[in-house]
Amino acid sequence: MGRIICAGLGPGDPDLMSRRADRAVRGATDIAYFRKKGRYGQARRIVEGMLADDVVEHAMEYPVTTEIPFNSPDYNRRLAEFYDQWASRLITLSQGRDVVVLCEGDPFFYGSFMHLYTRLRGQIEIEVIPGITGMTGCWTAMGEPITWGDDVMTVLMGSMGEDALAQRMVACDALVVMKTGRNLPKVKRALARAGRLDEAWLVERGTMPDQRIARLAEVEEHDCPYFAIVLVHGHGRRPEIAQAAQ
Amino acid sequence: MGRIICAGLGPGDPDLMSRRADRAVRGATDIAYFRKKGRYGQARRIVEGMLADDVVEHAMEYPVTTEIPFNSPDYNRRLAEFYDQWASRLITLSQGRDVVVLCEGDPFFYGSFMHLYTRLRGQIEIEVIPGITGMTGCWTAMGEPITWGDDVMTVLMGSMGEDALAQRMVACDALVVMKTGRNLPKVKRALARAGRLDEAWLVERGTMPDQRIARLAEVEEHDCPYFAIVLVHGHGRRPEIAQAAQ
Repeated sequence: MGRIICAGLGPGDPDLMSRRADRAVRGATDIAYFRKKGRYGQARRIVEGMLADDVVEHAMEYPVTTEIPFNSPDYNRRLAEFYDQWASRLITLSQGRDVVVLCEGDPFFYGSFMHLYTRLRGQIEIEVIPGITGMTGCWTAMGEPITWGDDVMTVLMGSMGEDALAQRMVACDALVVMKTGRNLPKVKRALARAGRLDEAWLVERGTMPDQRIARLAEVEEHDCPYFAIVLVHGHGRRPEIAQAAQ
Repeated sequence: MGRIICAGLGPGDPDLMSRRADRAVRGATDIAYFRKKGRYGQARRIVEGMLADDVVEHAMEYPVTTEIPFNSPDYNRRLAEFYDQWASRLITLSQGRDVVVLCEGDPFFYGSFMHLYTRLRGQIEIEVIPGITGMTGCWTAMGEPITWGDDVMTVLMGSMGEDALAQRMVACDALVVMKTGRNLPKVKRALARAGRLDEAWLVERGTMPDQRIARLAEVEEHDCPYFAIVLVHGHGRRPEIAQAAQ
């Protein structure tokens, strides 16, 4: 019986993969990765040129992505079936050999792999290789520390409601917003309400050759992919300030 | 004129260093790293066995750590002088060769390197190689996803005031508390007030051979090093819930 090895690939530059993930990818006989139907897939793109000539590839293509509302029961049902089927398939595939599942960023930090992980654990040996998160790639690309001293950092999803976003944007020093894309107008309104829009940056494809960094206030609202990340940097909260009643 | 290369070393296991950091460390003629006086230093320990035989080592020993209150003016003044001196020294050292500064975790995420970075930038070429954060090492060691779906994640410092901690512990799904150590009794009280103590874990030296994972409620209050991390896992906030007024 083989194992499932989930390799965290990091933020995009293959040179930022860990030594362990690098070995797992190069030595793989079978790889599996999620992608949108009709796309090459970002995880697959990161490992371009690293794979064995005779590697067997298993593209796990999402049945639905943005075609139907992502909070509908139909969306959830179809995705659950998709994950069930791939979990079974991976168990079958891993009879006698390891299967390396590719995962952008870090697998346990908002990674799609966990939908397989919860179905596979207990049934088969699983190794998870951590990775540098996409957000770390973005703040590195900016060349600016995200947190200092006693800074509070909060990670938010652009898919949340505007009030929930704005409340939390006030209560932290450093801020990361993921799942931007069509949520961008709402994210900008929430940041403006929290008085933080002027400090916010949009970072796209951080660490990749075509990375883009822009002041969020200057970004056109339709001009934002889903995977672009909004950053607000901390300024180094001092212990004295933190001790005061807030 | 050489460069300053800050190599993020990741959470502790040398195999989790990026390929780029690995090359920088192995190829270094000069390395520099922070440590407490009289200690070997955790960053130095991670690269054990990787260094060239004739590497020149520069141990940057903190003038004070826990001997005087860390929010006193004297502490700040002495640390500022220390960073000033090392910034000058690194510039002198890097005449004609690169100096690799070792940094645990990721340099821009609560890293001490940024105190040098702010002094050096503009004067010398600096490359920052990101790393897997210590917190990522800890949640990987637990084998449990830290965030799913629309989870809000907040990173707090145990050195903050109890009220500030408790307030923020209520407002997030997944939670990371760093700088624990002697702050542990306060962190536990804040978690209890937020109704989250029973879900909290203490992870020490995640990804290292002597890692320790314990339910925080069962940890003796004096039995916690400064670098141990408290984790509370998210349960996968659903978009529907997030859309509701909160």
